[in-house]
Amino acid sequence: MDSTSGLPTLAVVGATGAVGAVLLDLLSTRRDVYGEIRLVGSKESAGRTLRVRGRWAETVALTPEAFDGVDIAAFAVPARVAAEWAPVAVERGAVVVDGSGAFRLGPDVPLIVPEVNPDQVRERPRGIVASPGCTTLSMIVALGALHGRYGLRELVVASYEAASAAGRDGVDTLYAQLEKVGGDRALGNRAGDIRGVVGDLGPFPAPLALNVVPWTGAHASAGWTSGEMAVRDETREILGLPQLKVAATCVRVPVVTAHSVAVHAVFQERVEQREAQDVLARSPGVVLCDSPETHEFPTPSDVVGTDPIWAGRVRRSLDDPHALDLFLCGDNLRKGAALNTAQIAELVAAERAG
Amino acid sequence: MDSTSGLPTLAVVGATGAVGAVLLDLLSTRRDVYGEIRLVGSKESAGRTLRVRGRWAETVALTPEAFDGVDIAAFAVPARVAAEWAPVAVERGAVVVDGSGAFRLGPDVPLIVPEVNPDQVRERPRGIVASPGCTTLSMIVALGALHGRYGLRELVVASYEAASAAGRDGVDTLYAQLEKVGGDRALGNRAGDIRGVVGDLGPFPAPLALNVVPWTGAHASAGWTSGEMAVRDETREILGLPQLKVAATCVRVPVVTAHSVAVHAVFQERVEQREAQDVLARSPGVVLCDSPETHEFPTPSDVVGTDPIWAGRVRRSLDDPHALDLFLCGDNLRKGAALNTAQIAELVAAERAG
Repeated sequence: MDSTSGLPTLAVVGATGAVGAVLLDLLSTRRDVYGEIRLVGSKESAGRTLRVRGRWAETVALTPEAFDGVDIAAFAVPARVAAEWAPVAVERGAVVVDGSGAFRLGPDVPLIVPEVNPDQVRERPRGIVASPGCTTLSMIVALGALHGRYGLRELVVASYEAASAAGRDGVDTLYAQLEKVGGDRALGNRAGDIRGVVGDLGPFPAPLALNVVPWTGAHASAGWTSGEMAVRDETREILGLPQLKVAATCVRVPVVTAHSVAVHAVFQERVEQREAQDVLARSPGVVLCDSPETHEFPTPSDVVGTDPIWAGRVRRSLDDPHALDLFLCGDNLRKGAALNTAQIAELVAAERAG
Repeated sequence: MDSTSGLPTLAVVGATGAVGAVLLDLLSTRRDVYGEIRLVGSKESAGRTLRVRGRWAETVALTPEAFDGVDIAAFAVPARVAAEWAPVAVERGAVVVDGSGAFRLGPDVPLIVPEVNPDQVRERPRGIVASPGCTTLSMIVALGALHGRYGLRELVVASYEAASAAGRDGVDTLYAQLEKVGGDRALGNRAGDIRGVVGDLGPFPAPLALNVVPWTGAHASAGWTSGEMAVRDETREILGLPQLKVAATCVRVPVVTAHSVAVHAVFQERVEQREAQDVLARSPGVVLCDSPETHEFPTPSDVVGTDPIWAGRVRRSLDDPHALDLFLCGDNLRKGAALNTAQIAELVAAERAG
């Protein structure tokens, strides 16, 4: 607690990273509910000054003492760092909001999307609240709204995931590959040509420039990837539907930032196109962008840098009056990461305030 | 009929186009079953010499007389040209194999995929045989094989379609846009930035470089595109399943050539992962590329320029023992267009021969 203002102290752990940068940007533009904001980084980044809320602040090194007096610690770091340091922050008295995958779906850790299941933030026996993965966050707010009206029964999802979800290395790799393939128009006509010239694959298991890669994360089991399993398990957990049928295929595409998903959703109730569009248009955190006659639909390059999930191509399935097909886009660094973390931290701050 | 050889005369209509070029390439490498091969093009391209079967041949202008003595006329032209000229070719005695959309799903015109429904090629009251669209052709050979074993009941498809399906203009547009966005790494972080710099959208309704566009074809009805309706109607027709449930979302991606599709297929029978992989591996026209532990899966850049459909990521759905999820890639200019046309023409030639 900040002794002057009476407002909670927030620590941003990983302030100098890609998601951390977006988080600082959001803290500067959203309602200010904090006293001190403390920037925490690796030993190497300690001493770097960053701008937050219009002022420059110095990054301190990640040590146990960095959490002294901290009420809420937002973690925007790799999972192995969060796994080690979140318990330390809790021990020093902070509530941890973890954006990494370290505690997702772990026992006694609520998985929160503030538009969908805000009340569960209070049930945190370990002092840790988790934010879901970026693929789930690209669709869950819109699906939560539709579930509220029609009752979700089954989901088939195909994703179009951006390079920045693999960090700065992902973005650098995509641009470096594009430079190598962009000039030669004979490329892309023969099998393996692109693989021969792109050079470093970076964090991806195949070339990404002028290609799509049907693989995200690690191999989980029976041919499924960890990314696909996460979409299923996180969606079930957040919506409170442990039996929900989910089949996801996760694919990386040569887009810098903003994930897209093509969703086929089957409901208990019959759906109507106009009403479903209205449900989405009225939902906080969702913008409807859906006018096929004038080619209005969301695309990653049109939604990048914005907060909401954009919904378009909403149509009732031709062969099933209980099913909707739709296309969703959202910024994987904002709602897909930093924004959801910031929103969870605000829920915790509000709870402390009153 | 070629009087010397006794073999049928083939006309290639649209020999100077993008698909025509691939067709000539295929005619030079596949089994030679023709006497004369006559190249037919627009008035502007008449007189151009092109190489086929190792010899140079001169393109003749598209006139009624161009079809005199022709047994089989393969059309690789826009739909409006085929609509006008296919009946002329039939009147002059040719069997037309049409790769354009002009006669697909029309009355009394069989829609043929030689690996799936070859026998229907003989039932052609109008003298015209149609080849399906490239999105359907990206998946139908693999799905036909699985249908033969398990009995297909329902399909949910999301596509990743290449620029070259929109012709040379599509490819030129993608490269021109990539040149404009490639150098500036600040681009792609703010909404609309890319739209502001890519310049000409070409045949696409939104920027394609560093983006994906959930729209192919024209608006059909109730929010569905003509591309999505075609996947449904063509699949039903080819598999002889008029009641098949199909929900497709068609999306253009910044890939030059080779379409991909993520498929969720529900069957009458229970499926087994290993057996389904075996069914695919044994199917003519399909190559299984599926070893998740070593990151083996098909990608567009690895299959471009090859004839078969490549199948990978084959897995039984976690929540439905009757459903398979898989990822398919195929060259949209080869099996997706010229190759299927060439295969149909060979069926007709074989029929005449014996």
